[in-house]
Amino acid sequence: MLKVAVVGASGYTGVELIRLLHAHPEAAVTCVTSEQSAGKRLSDVFPSARSRCDMLLENLEPVRVAEKADLIFTALPHKAAMEVVPTFLSLGKQVVDLSADYRLHDADVYGKWYEPHMNPELLPRAVYGLPEIRREEIAAADLVANPGCYPTSIILALAPLLKRGVIDPSSIIADSKSGVSGAGRSAKVDNLYCEVNDGFKAYGVGGVHRHIPEIEQELTLLAGRGVTVTFTPHLVPMNRGILSTIYCHPTSTLTPEQLLDMYNDDYDGEAFVRVLPKGVFPSTAFVRGSNFCDIGVTIDPRSGRIVIVSAIDNLVKGASGQAVQNMNILAGLPENMGLELIPIYP
Amino acid sequence: MLKVAVVGASGYTGVELIRLLHAHPEAAVTCVTSEQSAGKRLSDVFPSARSRCDMLLENLEPVRVAEKADLIFTALPHKAAMEVVPTFLSLGKQVVDLSADYRLHDADVYGKWYEPHMNPELLPRAVYGLPEIRREEIAAADLVANPGCYPTSIILALAPLLKRGVIDPSSIIADSKSGVSGAGRSAKVDNLYCEVNDGFKAYGVGGVHRHIPEIEQELTLLAGRGVTVTFTPHLVPMNRGILSTIYCHPTSTLTPEQLLDMYNDDYDGEAFVRVLPKGVFPSTAFVRGSNFCDIGVTIDPRSGRIVIVSAIDNLVKGASGQAVQNMNILAGLPENMGLELIPIYP
Amino acid sequence: MLKVAVVGASGYTGVELIRLLHAHPEAAVTCVTSEQSAGKRLSDVFPSARSRCDMLLENLEPVRVAEKADLIFTALPHKAAMEVVPTFLSLGKQVVDLSADYRLHDADVYGKWYEPHMNPELLPRAVYGLPEIRREEIAAADLVANPGCYPTSIILALAPLLKRGVIDPSSIIADSKSGVSGAGRSAKVDNLYCEVNDGFKAYGVGGVHRHIPEIEQELTLLAGRGVTVTFTPHLVPMNRGILSTIYCHPTSTLTPEQLLDMYNDDYDGEAFVRVLPKGVFPSTAFVRGSNFCDIGVTIDPRSGRIVIVSAIDNLVKGASGQAVQNMNILAGLPENMGLELIPIYP
Amino acid sequence: MLKVAVVGASGYTGVELIRLLHAHPEAAVTCVTSEQSAGKRLSDVFPSARSRCDMLLENLEPVRVAEKADLIFTALPHKAAMEVVPTFLSLGKQVVDLSADYRLHDADVYGKWYEPHMNPELLPRAVYGLPEIRREEIAAADLVANPGCYPTSIILALAPLLKRGVIDPSSIIADSKSGVSGAGRSAKVDNLYCEVNDGFKAYGVGGVHRHIPEIEQELTLLAGRGVTVTFTPHLVPMNRGILSTIYCHPTSTLTPEQLLDMYNDDYDGEAFVRVLPKGVFPSTAFVRGSNFCDIGVTIDPRSGRIVIVSAIDNLVKGASGQAVQNMNILAGLPENMGLELIPIYP
Repeated sequence: MLKVAVVGASGYTGVELIRLLHAHPEAAVTCVTSEQSAGKRLSDVFPSARSRCDMLLENLEPVRVAEKADLIFTALPHKAAMEVVPTFLSLGKQVVDLSADYRLHDADVYGKWYEPHMNPELLPRAVYGLPEIRREEIAAADLVANPGCYPTSIILALAPLLKRGVIDPSSIIADSKSGVSGAGRSAKVDNLYCEVNDGFKAYGVGGVHRHIPEIEQELTLLAGRGVTVTFTPHLVPMNRGILSTIYCHPTSTLTPEQLLDMYNDDYDGEAFVRVLPKGVFPSTAFVRGSNFCDIGVTIDPRSGRIVIVSAIDNLVKGASGQAVQNMNILAGLPENMGLELIPIYP
Repeated sequence: MLKVAVVGASGYTGVELIRLLHAHPEAAVTCVTSEQSAGKRLSDVFPSARSRCDMLLENLEPVRVAEKADLIFTALPHKAAMEVVPTFLSLGKQVVDLSADYRLHDADVYGKWYEPHMNPELLPRAVYGLPEIRREEIAAADLVANPGCYPTSIILALAPLLKRGVIDPSSIIADSKSGVSGAGRSAKVDNLYCEVNDGFKAYGVGGVHRHIPEIEQELTLLAGRGVTVTFTPHLVPMNRGILSTIYCHPTSTLTPEQLLDMYNDDYDGEAFVRVLPKGVFPSTAFVRGSNFCDIGVTIDPRSGRIVIVSAIDNLVKGASGQAVQNMNILAGLPENMGLELIPIYP
Repeated sequence: MLKVAVVGASGYTGVELIRLLHAHPEAAVTCVTSEQSAGKRLSDVFPSARSRCDMLLENLEPVRVAEKADLIFTALPHKAAMEVVPTFLSLGKQVVDLSADYRLHDADVYGKWYEPHMNPELLPRAVYGLPEIRREEIAAADLVANPGCYPTSIILALAPLLKRGVIDPSSIIADSKSGVSGAGRSAKVDNLYCEVNDGFKAYGVGGVHRHIPEIEQELTLLAGRGVTVTFTPHLVPMNRGILSTIYCHPTSTLTPEQLLDMYNDDYDGEAFVRVLPKGVFPSTAFVRGSNFCDIGVTIDPRSGRIVIVSAIDNLVKGASGQAVQNMNILAGLPENMGLELIPIYP
Repeated sequence: MLKVAVVGASGYTGVELIRLLHAHPEAAVTCVTSEQSAGKRLSDVFPSARSRCDMLLENLEPVRVAEKADLIFTALPHKAAMEVVPTFLSLGKQVVDLSADYRLHDADVYGKWYEPHMNPELLPRAVYGLPEIRREEIAAADLVANPGCYPTSIILALAPLLKRGVIDPSSIIADSKSGVSGAGRSAKVDNLYCEVNDGFKAYGVGGVHRHIPEIEQELTLLAGRGVTVTFTPHLVPMNRGILSTIYCHPTSTLTPEQLLDMYNDDYDGEAFVRVLPKGVFPSTAFVRGSNFCDIGVTIDPRSGRIVIVSAIDNLVKGASGQAVQNMNILAGLPENMGLELIPIYP
């Protein structure tokens, strides 16, 4: 039984980790922390967990946490993660970090989009934890930077095309739509029910969202040359889910069938990527609560553009589910262990 | 491995059975039927299930179904169930029927609220499948009438009081609120998104809802004397969940603590009933996707009335989860097997 | 043209006043205040109002406000209202106060449910502003205490029965359900989108909600003897609307037709109360954005109880619309002026 | 007083016309028709209208309708409109047609996307009713083809750029998101509450939506040369609203300020187009129930692309509000008469 700690358990990704790990046959949660709710039970903060996980939330004392667990999930805001991850590593622990702190390889880029990095020397040691792309590297790592939700939906959607060099890397536009849980559980007027319900808006328009450097880093690595994207996130009145609609130009004429062949070739053996049949496109409703990434692809014959639509649950494949998938890889367990749930519908 | 069939798999309770059984370690779904979607795959009708359950939906031929399964879930509309259940029984199969057809002990009452019963001789054989009340009878049965969603939320909320005779049985009012999945998946203008979203209404006002005879039958059995209830259902703009707010008069003065003691005494060993601490009341959000029934109870000191609030997921404890719980009992498996999921939140 | 001020314009009732007054042919908003957003434009705080109402939000300086307006709406939290209303009155202004501060006739009751009253001498001067009940008194007043949202839905639903003495005043149970805008626009985790969406809960269970003394005061006056109610509020995942389901016992046998006759007799001339035909019950969706109160009533023949269902838009008939209705009465304008909008559907 | 008929009043655009016309000081609805609900009152079909519009819905007999009205709104499905519009015109009536039947100038294009046109000779007579673009032509017409909802949001967003020739017309991508009322009020499983709620999906992916020829026709006219767009519609779990996020390449370097100047120059005198300040982007929530089109625009400095975001209420500026605006123009009334409502928020 793998002993795991969830550091930062009072947020939505924290409780989602608890939910998924509770259903995992080989992992036991031995420690949960929360700065703001220390001393309460997890089930006081999330009554959904009552009688399933009534553990006490502790203050985050890294050494104590490390004593209790073999593997540590850090579900903290950026900056807070890099304050504690070095300690966990120095004590020989494996870390799956759900923050942005170790996703970027270049500390300068991190500094530009976030703030000065506190331990840039760890960046080369961190592996970007998208298993469908870097399974082997993850298996060999002790620090996995769990991808962002938007990036996951975009990178998986573009990888088959970029790897094959069949699209113009300067033509990529990602128009993404997210449920509200992506904004976290902190009290802000903008995220009140009445502000969000029955409305729809764009935000971070014009290339300012912090997921952009992460997206471009990974697409650039896949393409083997520089990729710049236009990325616009939107807020959907729903709890969970991200759907990305992605546009790009092929470098030569392609049919929908040829495109689907590329996706099927790449993803056929993957437990969590479902390439949809021709003419079928995903809905976030069909991945709700699951670790799936559903992808549909076609050509717009009138403009010649490729249109790819991908859908994930932002809290699962976009965060905690992918983190458990990475845990499985790190621990040498079957990658899909504990994650084979059918999405909850409706 | 227990072989089970889901008859009527193209409705919401059908696909919820598939979801729960997929996560069950000792049950294998060997047959799924649907009159309206026969020939399609389950995952064509519910894309959520793609790659997890791609079985072909068959026409409902009872003998063929019985050949494939040891236990059969009938997730059919009322009347359709009693057309096939006798065949399953005659072939020695165990049946958990999710329709209303075998819930009422009295064929005349059934005839009054529904239509003439086609096999009233089976009614004495059927056990009302509320495990917290009739666990032993269920274990000995071959026909379990899975309770309705509203009745489950109301009977579990009142049982501790009625068994003890501490309330006036003529004083019961159940004001219940349901998510929209209770209305099923058929195309009706009333259930269109725009008709339901951002609104709230009562329906079946004035004692006309078909769950009333079922509620009164079970409450009468618990009380040992006739119980008549005032029951008003309402429609909430949400997918899943039932919350019942129940009012009644104590026959003598009681404190909230005394009330809670009664509930805790009855439900402490129950895997799926969570009695909430004093001053805490349930939300459907905290049982979403789970087999829990959460109950809070207090006294209104100003009027002297008892107020009980209970919450379930109508598709789980109110239908398919309870059906799996009954299956576990019938099959001699641990009652909570496959059902210990943490509710999905948010 | 009547010059009016909206004091506390940065909340939901404030902007709803602005919306309704903008459509009013005889009222002009001359001053808007907000403590937290002073210096911003109203349309910065509520972009919906852009180009329709771009007035600057001012700090609340009562004398300055009074210089600009003939009638003042105080849309403030309780306590904040009673700090400024005396000044407005002393300067000869008419006040429609949307807070709870002047609704209760008895300062001791106010003190028990809220806090010590700062100007109890004004309580006899204030009129409870439910026009269907106290039209003449309102017309003669200079201080109107605009009713609470829950009380409006409950008092209008019970008035015809209590006035006629045909129900047992100790038998009243009001099970009410409200949209989320009733909770205001302040940042609280409980009101975040993800906490509310797709869930339903009771709150204030057991006779603790502050609207209870207001409900009982008015019902007692209508009945001519003491009325105690059991009241349970609930939170519905929708922006606007309150639906109250009310149960009581008739003192003698009544038919649904007799009940409807009472309601029609009382409300036939009323512009904003719609008594629904036999067998029809209201939905909040059908009053959205309007000043209507829809009421349906019947007898549950099995229990003999009367069941009344009423629906309002909590921000209109439950707050700002009723305030404008009161303004019309105070100003000697036709009572329905500016309020005859058809509800917005869907 | 202008006498108007609403043909096809039992759909969502029909009842929205009734709502808006009820608030219009110079228009009186004299006739409402509905094939499926003839003989019922409008308020039976839409209880929101009770006591405001209780007119009887009539069968559609064009000559009788024409006898009662000066101007006729045809809120019918495509094909049904072109069966009756010629009669109205031949009887000298003005027609505002909300269907697609007269939007396309080329009968062959209509035939390709819809079906053979029944009266192509009327196409040159019809004016595409986007007042901000064709105000003078509308004023001189007797047949106004009211624009589609998606096209309205896209054309208004692109007109300032295309008129000035500052973008590459082959670079346009419109990623649009619509509320569910756009799908109408017919009973379909896909539009059931549970199928839509808490989910998000694309549909009509790959250049197949019927609004495409309409969008391209108008953009081509604005640009003075052929425009082909990539257009992807999506379904948002909300009742009302369309938000379009539009991407295109400038033909030379432009700053956000230069872009905003173009939009402000074009739209400053417009009553219903609100150009938002730099860095501010629209939400459908802020135009709900109103005839506004809100537009925000910027440059993505990283990719050099222009990003335009526009928001309308699909039932108002996207249908019935624009139809009333056209009615005002046809009737020589002030264009904003009856349409100056502040959006309803929240």
